[in-house]
Amino acid sequence: MKDNFEQALIIAVEESMERADQFFLEIEDKTKDGPGVTRVAWGEGEQIGHDMCEAWAKELGMEISGDSAGNLYMTFPGEDREAPPFIVGSHMDTVPCGGNYDGAAGVISGLAAIQAFQAAGITPAQDTIVMAIRAEEAGSWFSGLHGGHLGSRAALGRFMEDELNTAHHNYFDKSLYEVIKTAGFDPDAIANNPPHLNPQKIKGYCELHIEQGPILIAENKPVGVVSGIRGNRRFRNCKALGEYNHGGATPQSFRKDAALGAAEFLYKFEQVGLQTLADGGDLVFNPGIIHTDPDVNGLSKVCGEVNFTLDMRSESSEILDTMRKTAEGIAAEISEQRGVNVDLGAFSVSVPAALQNDEKHRMLKGCAAMGLEATSLASGGGHDAAEFHHEGVPSSMIFIRNENGSHNPDEAMEMEDFCEGTKILAWMMATA
Amino acid sequence: MKDNFEQALIIAVEESMERADQFFLEIEDKTKDGPGVTRVAWGEGEQIGHDMCEAWAKELGMEISGDSAGNLYMTFPGEDREAPPFIVGSHMDTVPCGGNYDGAAGVISGLAAIQAFQAAGITPAQDTIVMAIRAEEAGSWFSGLHGGHLGSRAALGRFMEDELNTAHHNYFDKSLYEVIKTAGFDPDAIANNPPHLNPQKIKGYCELHIEQGPILIAENKPVGVVSGIRGNRRFRNCKALGEYNHGGATPQSFRKDAALGAAEFLYKFEQVGLQTLADGGDLVFNPGIIHTDPDVNGLSKVCGEVNFTLDMRSESSEILDTMRKTAEGIAAEISEQRGVNVDLGAFSVSVPAALQNDEKHRMLKGCAAMGLEATSLASGGGHDAAEFHHEGVPSSMIFIRNENGSHNPDEAMEMEDFCEGTKILAWMMATA
Repeated sequence: MKDNFEQALIIAVEESMERADQFFLEIEDKTKDGPGVTRVAWGEGEQIGHDMCEAWAKELGMEISGDSAGNLYMTFPGEDREAPPFIVGSHMDTVPCGGNYDGAAGVISGLAAIQAFQAAGITPAQDTIVMAIRAEEAGSWFSGLHGGHLGSRAALGRFMEDELNTAHHNYFDKSLYEVIKTAGFDPDAIANNPPHLNPQKIKGYCELHIEQGPILIAENKPVGVVSGIRGNRRFRNCKALGEYNHGGATPQSFRKDAALGAAEFLYKFEQVGLQTLADGGDLVFNPGIIHTDPDVNGLSKVCGEVNFTLDMRSESSEILDTMRKTAEGIAAEISEQRGVNVDLGAFSVSVPAALQNDEKHRMLKGCAAMGLEATSLASGGGHDAAEFHHEGVPSSMIFIRNENGSHNPDEAMEMEDFCEGTKILAWMMATA
Repeated sequence: MKDNFEQALIIAVEESMERADQFFLEIEDKTKDGPGVTRVAWGEGEQIGHDMCEAWAKELGMEISGDSAGNLYMTFPGEDREAPPFIVGSHMDTVPCGGNYDGAAGVISGLAAIQAFQAAGITPAQDTIVMAIRAEEAGSWFSGLHGGHLGSRAALGRFMEDELNTAHHNYFDKSLYEVIKTAGFDPDAIANNPPHLNPQKIKGYCELHIEQGPILIAENKPVGVVSGIRGNRRFRNCKALGEYNHGGATPQSFRKDAALGAAEFLYKFEQVGLQTLADGGDLVFNPGIIHTDPDVNGLSKVCGEVNFTLDMRSESSEILDTMRKTAEGIAAEISEQRGVNVDLGAFSVSVPAALQNDEKHRMLKGCAAMGLEATSLASGGGHDAAEFHHEGVPSSMIFIRNENGSHNPDEAMEMEDFCEGTKILAWMMATA
């Protein structure tokens, strides 16, 4: 790599933005759905995205291939074609009526970086693959038993036994197996053949993505280096069980008020959570759903039952375990003290992805090299990068400032910020 | 009154129980509705009750009359027929699929007491009227603008302007005016004539009713002297308004979590309420309904809106006012501190009825005279007695022990306890 390559790369990335902007406008136009865009996993919108990527990659003279799940691999040859390739990418599907940037930005930035390489005459040491991944938004499209991030997990051979049949695509009302087959790919090969990607033969994985929270806006920074991807503990079926009673005639000390029991639980859990944050731990949490039984509840009745959910996320598995036990402890204490049985029920586990320290340090160096002040922040949502990380691939993520959150039509990424992020991505690709 | 009349009255009341028991069985049989009974206000079941009362009163040679609202007055002549009469009674309607005793017990006990007077040769100083009151369960049968307790309020001239038209009978899908007219009574007379009862010409009012709470069961007492009827402050439309956000990507300090805001409000309000009880104040309270918006909420979303109710009741208007202000203060504090706007909205007011001290003391004396240990307790629910009290009639209430609460098919009053209560009622009538 030339000593002054960075200045050339900065200019070349800036020049690639016109093509990238055109791509964003065209894909928005082609997948518009009311106020937002919809690109159904293994559906028409996602395929439009893949086709557009392939077309640009062909303009750039990249090699095109695919796998049995329909993931698209666009390869830019490196100096040593036998060396393990460096992969960048993200997903082309969206949630229903979502935004134009969540997912697509990561693939488009990869292609823009390759265009910049060509303009600046840069050839990385190894092949660079820009990967357009299927069905990252599986949580929005599928029900039944599945592990999410279906495209990357298929490519890495991370499917659970029979997941092709237990996952159900709600939009198509078909099993995952049938959906993949109907889309023209090969579910039997996914089930029976070795995975398309061998993690031991991947140099690294880097994903650019819009931030889904407000931190970069608040800190007035265009880009951030992701410290890790939060895992979670999720209680979907919490229940406070008390006793329905006359709201006027039952003395307070005789009551088993489920609504007051649930309120006490949530308040006390929040206090411990805030202390964990004050102690410097990484944690977010929320009850998202809470309701009494509309068939039985009433203004003048002591409430006998409340159902609610509790989601907690952290970069630290230890904090998640501690908070989960804390929640169960508070629930047990309330059950004993007020006769309202607070039962949190089963919880699901998603393991945090710490992301690789070497790659994070390299990215911080890249930020400095490209003239950007770096901010570190956690990713609250899951991403395909977590799947690569869990398979031992040195993985990293770049977040782009984005107003109004993601998964909604109001996503608001500025092209200036996207350009800064693409510079860092390109630097990561060039120096891998 | 003879000196030894009490012993004779005890025996005579006990002998009247066979007829009373028969009445309970017959009315249950005639108004059965699945597991419970249904006596619609101004409907068939209630009329069956009135007809049965009238039949028994005629057996007893009582004078029968009615008013424009359909209330039934059964008069037992006293020594001075010009003196203001003493009224006892309750209502004959029930809630939909309710229990056999809520209401009816108060009228049947009055008739049983008259039968006992005849057997024991007792003639009170003034006329005694047993009153079968219409539509006390108005809260269950009517929507629209109305003040509840429609039968007693009609008799006492307590209707609000135009209440005959603003109250809507849901079962018949008719206005109060039309329902009364269809039932064969005279709504125009209610609106235009002086009220049937002149409070200044009533010696007193005494109502026997099953307890709707668990206190007499817990204290192992067959009857209780009601200290007062709780009033209330009711917030029907409380709302915590925060902001929907990504549940993983939004740092805790950026959140405006409406569910956690509502939980904090309820927990803190409960703490103040429990302190008020510890300080000896009369108070009960409950959020009866609480729910997030099912169209928008989600496990992994910070909750933007929670709706809930808050009902608080007390024998003391001062405590109600203090607690209402406390609630609004806590709501304002939370709104300021966590950016979740907790708005309790409008509240309705029902004034407590302290009941008359002289009559309460007289009843305690009666309990002693009839060989019963007296327990004092508040009434949590509203009763017709409150309407007489608010019009200045010296009013009192006797509660009968009752398992399983009221307003449900499982009401469980024992005839032995009913007999004890009837003895006290009869004593109150005899010595008024």
